[in-house]
Amino acid sequence: MRGNLDNLRVVLVATRNPLNIGAAARAMSNFGARHLRLVNPFELAFREARSAVGAAELMASAKEYGTVAEAVADCRLVVGTTAAGRRELQHELRRLEEGGRTIRKQLGAGRIALLFGSEKVGLSNEDMGHCHWLMRIPTRAEHGSMNLGQAVAICLYELVRSGKIVAVKSGKSQAAAADLERLTQLLLEVLGTSGYVKPRVAAATEEKLRRMVRRLNLSDADAELWLGMLRQIQWKLGTAETRPGPKENKSV
Amino acid sequence: MRGNLDNLRVVLVATRNPLNIGAAARAMSNFGARHLRLVNPFELAFREARSAVGAAELMASAKEYGTVAEAVADCRLVVGTTAAGRRELQHELRRLEEGGRTIRKQLGAGRIALLFGSEKVGLSNEDMGHCHWLMRIPTRAEHGSMNLGQAVAICLYELVRSGKIVAVKSGKSQAAAADLERLTQLLLEVLGTSGYVKPRVAAATEEKLRRMVRRLNLSDADAELWLGMLRQIQWKLGTAETRPGPKENKSV
Repeated sequence: MRGNLDNLRVVLVATRNPLNIGAAARAMSNFGARHLRLVNPFELAFREARSAVGAAELMASAKEYGTVAEAVADCRLVVGTTAAGRRELQHELRRLEEGGRTIRKQLGAGRIALLFGSEKVGLSNEDMGHCHWLMRIPTRAEHGSMNLGQAVAICLYELVRSGKIVAVKSGKSQAAAADLERLTQLLLEVLGTSGYVKPRVAAATEEKLRRMVRRLNLSDADAELWLGMLRQIQWKLGTAETRPGPKENKSV
Repeated sequence: MRGNLDNLRVVLVATRNPLNIGAAARAMSNFGARHLRLVNPFELAFREARSAVGAAELMASAKEYGTVAEAVADCRLVVGTTAAGRRELQHELRRLEEGGRTIRKQLGAGRIALLFGSEKVGLSNEDMGHCHWLMRIPTRAEHGSMNLGQAVAICLYELVRSGKIVAVKSGKSQAAAADLERLTQLLLEVLGTSGYVKPRVAAATEEKLRRMVRRLNLSDADAELWLGMLRQIQWKLGTAETRPGPKENKSV
């Protein structure tokens, strides 16, 4: 009957209010999502969140992480949520209904992380860098910012409402977020070694590259291929102290 | 772009926690619903509800009522929300997606009330008696009871998500809830006078009749017709002290 959300990981990033964590946990329990991950919650006492009515077990098994990268490492698809209009987004932005459809289709094939930012500022640009794309709840432009617990509830409702999640393996296995992040770091190293990355704008470049890598929509196999290539390049860059200049390179 | 919820009245019945009223108000503001009605809120200080972020104006214009009947009197369609499985329901129960579609279609034609019960027990049988039908959010059977603010948010999201509310007048005007309640009361009087209503089960009978009247789905004109007929019958019952018994009645 209902969609199976076993592969879903709800990731709350830098949540300030434990009540909101509790509310998110309750909505998860209502809709059958079981895996809650917390990245740097502001209050350590979050496990006592009072509003987690009926979701004590879920709260007890919630996992904590220091970074978004770690929290989504085992996920094949990472989707961020955002209130639109709050800044110029450099990510693909999908309407919740459309994004929900894609998530439902892919839930059978591997783990999917759904990210929610902090109450005050939402997801940071750096957080978003780990996302394949973003999803937006269709709130009014004049009052777009939602309560966190309500936003989680609506997203989960969207995933289960039509009950069409099927437990099938897709033909192509998507690369895990951990591999994509490894690839991103390696690419950064390579570009750093190459002098492509200017120290002054290194952080901005890193974000740009991270987004770019996610947009590639790489399969497991392709990510491996890329990692292999970059490792080779990096090794070459490190050893080739007397590497040929551009002109000599042409003959290779 | 977005659906117009001007004709929607969100009615919170016997809400206990002002925070939930504030959360409902915030979700209303997020999705463009402006009219909040409160039936016997438990705390008089509800207007100070802290979580009504960005919805102060909406909270200030919220209206209070002593009974559900008064709160829905000017509405053409009254829809209750419920967590299923909590009792044997004698009302038509629609899935949120399906009920939402009907509400969207009829929002152009007149006011619609959407009722939410208290946190502890939801809507009472008596409250439900004022509803044409009920709507259920598809939560798990094992943990069906939702947080009130989240339930309101999800129902409103369902109404605006496809953005297909159109401001057209339907051909047939539905009877206002006030007329349906007048009809119910008159019918009860007539049946009471007739000896149909047993004093011991009067309350249960009243609920049964109230539901029955709502199921008729009467138009304005038909409700008027029924009221006229019942008024006539009641007058007749009151004056006909020496009215004919069953046998003599046959010749009429």
